[in-house]
Amino acid sequence: MCELLGMSANVPTDICFSFAGLIQRGGKTGPHKDGWGISFYEGLGCRSFLDAKPSVDSTIAEFVCNYPIKSNVVISHIRQANVGEVCLANTQPFIRELWGRSWSFAHNGQMNTVFDEVELGRYHPIGTTDSEHAFCWLLDQIEKNFDGIDNNLETVAQFIREHADKLAALGVFNMLLSESEYLFCYCTTKLHWITRRAPFGEASLKDADISIDFVKETGADDVVSIIATEPLTQNEQWHTIEAGELIVFREGEKVLSLTN
Amino acid sequence: MCELLGMSANVPTDICFSFAGLIQRGGKTGPHKDGWGISFYEGLGCRSFLDAKPSVDSTIAEFVCNYPIKSNVVISHIRQANVGEVCLANTQPFIRELWGRSWSFAHNGQMNTVFDEVELGRYHPIGTTDSEHAFCWLLDQIEKNFDGIDNNLETVAQFIREHADKLAALGVFNMLLSESEYLFCYCTTKLHWITRRAPFGEASLKDADISIDFVKETGADDVVSIIATEPLTQNEQWHTIEAGELIVFREGEKVLSLTN
Repeated sequence: MCELLGMSANVPTDICFSFAGLIQRGGKTGPHKDGWGISFYEGLGCRSFLDAKPSVDSTIAEFVCNYPIKSNVVISHIRQANVGEVCLANTQPFIRELWGRSWSFAHNGQMNTVFDEVELGRYHPIGTTDSEHAFCWLLDQIEKNFDGIDNNLETVAQFIREHADKLAALGVFNMLLSESEYLFCYCTTKLHWITRRAPFGEASLKDADISIDFVKETGADDVVSIIATEPLTQNEQWHTIEAGELIVFREGEKVLSLTN
Repeated sequence: MCELLGMSANVPTDICFSFAGLIQRGGKTGPHKDGWGISFYEGLGCRSFLDAKPSVDSTIAEFVCNYPIKSNVVISHIRQANVGEVCLANTQPFIRELWGRSWSFAHNGQMNTVFDEVELGRYHPIGTTDSEHAFCWLLDQIEKNFDGIDNNLETVAQFIREHADKLAALGVFNMLLSESEYLFCYCTTKLHWITRRAPFGEASLKDADISIDFVKETGADDVVSIIATEPLTQNEQWHTIEAGELIVFREGEKVLSLTN
């Protein structure tokens, strides 16, 4: 299994605090030591940092942790390998272009039969994971049925939810997906979220002796949602996403929730 | 205009020395201060570092310069913007997937009319540069005419060269392109290369007071080719790629050269 971390914000915001907590679980407070990755959206641009090393020992992860990159949408993943060897090609998030947008995808779970159960189209996996296979199929299905998201969000989101259900039926499928503006979060077993806004308070990480006073780090109108496999802080109230539920965030706000 | 840097090697090799020279030209010894990027292939995996800041002032470039990533194929780019604003989405190399390979593309030159002259298919630009438009078109043409490179290299390379000619006819088109194994280098105006192998010697950068003794850094069987817009060292003999010439490198060796 793996762990996921996502962020949606209405102003460019760094994720250093949350990421500092997550990477502890990649070999120290958790067993997810088979690589990690993080994708930052800045406008339509997207840049990722990837490493097949345990995040807790990764010089690149340390760099990302200490170099605040301001972004509106972030997707991150730490891996505990099941299907596919430990190597760069199997490191998430995976990225593909559709409609002139960079789509980033990260998956927690396992679907051993996905290779036989879903047929690929235009997108092909570069590595050998079940996750990337599922992503290629999902994106192909989206492309075949739509030509964009704007004015169409609920229909596209429902389509993604139903197709995520099909993948979940093959095992476990918790997913973060974005195309730069919307952050789609689908849960089979474990996914939590929190929205921070004024009045801001303090928070302490569960996995490291790090606290933050958001009053000092944020503006009064900032709205920032964090999505994570397990809550990252110990003194805040996180929400649980239900099995089969898809939540969509945009500019920090939960804008849609769809269930079966 | 921009500058290009590429590497092909028969063993995983770092490019820190050459990259240290290149990034000086991004705001210090050269005017290419509108962002930079570098893609490293490790097997089929590919990871990029991108920044819209001048490479000479970029904390991420400094990190890449000092953190040796061993790779068989590298493509790097420093930008002097002409078409398209300075932002992450317009930062090269651009990446797209074809045939389950990550294709990286970097362009030096300008083709103002490319938006009207070539029709896009399946691949769409995320940013607004002429370069990305050309890349999307070129990759679409390759996909429509082939289903792979193996056993087919000369035909595919000739096809790429002829399509690069068409782009060059719209302005200036110097290009580095790779899908993880082959490095395609096409020249309209300026591109140079050098292959280093035993007996290794010393080299000194033109753009910084840095020297290297390759004897200490390499194994006896290492073969490493470096391709750059302008020669990066002052005491070695670089070769010039001719206008309209496409050279293909694989595992450090020049394996093909095609001219008009």
